[in-house]
Amino acid sequence: MKRHILQLAVLLMAGTAMAQEAIFEKRDTGSPVKNDDGTVTLRLKAPEAQKVTVIGDCIEKMHAEMKNTDGTWTYTTPQLAPELYNYRFYVDGVEALDPANLERSRDVRSFMSTFIISREKGDQGYLYANHDIPHGDVQQVWYDSPSLGIQRRMSIYTPAGYDKGKKYPVLYLLHGAGGDEEAWLTLGRTQQILDNLIALGKAVPMIVVMPNGNATDDASPLMTGREHKNHPATTYQEGFGDIINYVQKHYKVKRGAANTALAGLSMGGFHTFSISLLRPGQFGYLGLFSAAVRMDRRSQKPIDVQLEESAEVSAQLEAVFRAKPSLYWIAIGKDDFLYQQNAGLRRYLDKKGYAYEYHESEGGHTWRNWRVYLSIFAQRLFK
Amino acid sequence: MKRHILQLAVLLMAGTAMAQEAIFEKRDTGSPVKNDDGTVTLRLKAPEAQKVTVIGDCIEKMHAEMKNTDGTWTYTTPQLAPELYNYRFYVDGVEALDPANLERSRDVRSFMSTFIISREKGDQGYLYANHDIPHGDVQQVWYDSPSLGIQRRMSIYTPAGYDKGKKYPVLYLLHGAGGDEEAWLTLGRTQQILDNLIALGKAVPMIVVMPNGNATDDASPLMTGREHKNHPATTYQEGFGDIINYVQKHYKVKRGAANTALAGLSMGGFHTFSISLLRPGQFGYLGLFSAAVRMDRRSQKPIDVQLEESAEVSAQLEAVFRAKPSLYWIAIGKDDFLYQQNAGLRRYLDKKGYAYEYHESEGGHTWRNWRVYLSIFAQRLFK
Repeated sequence: MKRHILQLAVLLMAGTAMAQEAIFEKRDTGSPVKNDDGTVTLRLKAPEAQKVTVIGDCIEKMHAEMKNTDGTWTYTTPQLAPELYNYRFYVDGVEALDPANLERSRDVRSFMSTFIISREKGDQGYLYANHDIPHGDVQQVWYDSPSLGIQRRMSIYTPAGYDKGKKYPVLYLLHGAGGDEEAWLTLGRTQQILDNLIALGKAVPMIVVMPNGNATDDASPLMTGREHKNHPATTYQEGFGDIINYVQKHYKVKRGAANTALAGLSMGGFHTFSISLLRPGQFGYLGLFSAAVRMDRRSQKPIDVQLEESAEVSAQLEAVFRAKPSLYWIAIGKDDFLYQQNAGLRRYLDKKGYAYEYHESEGGHTWRNWRVYLSIFAQRLFK
Repeated sequence: MKRHILQLAVLLMAGTAMAQEAIFEKRDTGSPVKNDDGTVTLRLKAPEAQKVTVIGDCIEKMHAEMKNTDGTWTYTTPQLAPELYNYRFYVDGVEALDPANLERSRDVRSFMSTFIISREKGDQGYLYANHDIPHGDVQQVWYDSPSLGIQRRMSIYTPAGYDKGKKYPVLYLLHGAGGDEEAWLTLGRTQQILDNLIALGKAVPMIVVMPNGNATDDASPLMTGREHKNHPATTYQEGFGDIINYVQKHYKVKRGAANTALAGLSMGGFHTFSISLLRPGQFGYLGLFSAAVRMDRRSQKPIDVQLEESAEVSAQLEAVFRAKPSLYWIAIGKDDFLYQQNAGLRRYLDKKGYAYEYHESEGGHTWRNWRVYLSIFAQRLFK
């Protein structure tokens, strides 16, 4: 382009809904501030407020009152390890995200401000951030689900270099109750974790399929503006073949158990467990992240006893392990409210002599744990 | 799946970051409430607040104080025509989105709560909502930009049925200053507008390419966590061929001016104008939505005079019109601060006898107008 045209000036204007006069809103960008000593200071200008509190997983005891100095409220966190953290203000009792922080994420119906702490290449925070490396692409596609009788939406990650024509193994990655096909991408940081692990040489390039696990919905309510459209005649687990069919038809996937993994968190862990029962031998890698493994809700008996008493499930589980999956991985936090259920499942597997691996972490039923579990699990796949 | 397995109960739990005890947070969902008389009531529970105000394009005069009754603050809008509306609360001076409303959208660094009013099939609000019709897919891809020297991200919409193998015409759709490759998808409702217009038979199925127009960035700061990574040796407009090359290589696109459109809002309108000058005859359809058409920023002369005084731009514009584009469409609101610039451009085109169409709307430099302009422009393409 010639000099003359280069001089055409671009008006810098932001089309805010409010209007043309706003242009770039002036914002205080002094929050969050990462301090040299490893703490982080959160700051909110609110001279008219009577009281400001902050909650979040970076806050000591999860909850604190902020300190008011001349109308600016501050809170400084403890020293923070490399991680992705969240927080939210309450201004005179009403929730408010940090106006100075663009980073925010949705968990079901709840929004939080977020930030990442990373100190060196390869640490846990590093895995969640974007770096100057080759990036995979994300597609949000609608697929026909004849089983459920509707078109449904899912998210699919394809690794960098995918367009060069090679075939790739596939991880089916399932969200928890209340989540949807966006959950693993946003809170789960799947794209970042996979991009980074692949670039670091710690995971093999793979396709990751993130469906919507709510058989009553076609898509995220954020996408559709509504919930519970569908009243399916069958279950999500029974309809899972529709997802596999779509992926095998439209993507360059390697077939066979050695190239197929299934994992999920919480309800998605339950889905993983029950889909594997229906399809023994199809998945060479299975991951139960804080899984809601439960038989009869009304029963007071431990899971292992219930499993033993069900001839059908026992037979299905036997078929799963007879196929010798390369990895059957159970992960849960010490404080998870599903800990005892998972302990029951392990007792049953131990008694039967079925080969599985167990990863016990600190903490409870949280996205922090599920991101870590994905980071570990992905490194074990297809090798 | 057999009866027995069906009885496996799913624990309904939301893995909030806060923790397992939260499960589904109980929320007051009584906002916004669409009343029978066409008004909408916004409501916020804030018993500790001293003052709550609300701003937005559904608020009379854009700004109002809310009324406190027993700690619940309310505001009822005027009667609203079918549209997508936005609003945001200020609780004792601090911005807060509506906790009861999941719908929210980002404009540059600013978030607003939103809702859609639609009264009948085909009205403006209908075009922005999701309906039970075939849906197109959205991809967010990283492409190599040799001109700018980086990998960059863009969003691409492919219409329902795309996977059946046919080729499609392409609309390149550009955002404004401060926006990014997500702007047309979120505030612009591009996926919904195209899905709906195609299903209504009012637009032909097309691919829509939404690049990032900031040559200094590789992607949305929401994606990367930073801004202004790049210091390119060339301009976005000069590098636009990288985008076209990627699309033509990776997507099933019809070639030629009759199958290629270019449009943009504000800065994107300027990009549309200047890219067309560099590529006369390549785009059969051109759309300038509230375009920032400007020559020398320091000049006080009207645009038409500046255009006449530039032999180079005059010659380029002549080449654009000599190629006889099927549609050269200029749209702007009466209150837009760029109105006079566009009037100057039109005077120049009129004087030269170049064929264009002009659409003048109410309102200013707003997403409301740009969504409407896209709705109109898309119906004119490739016919």
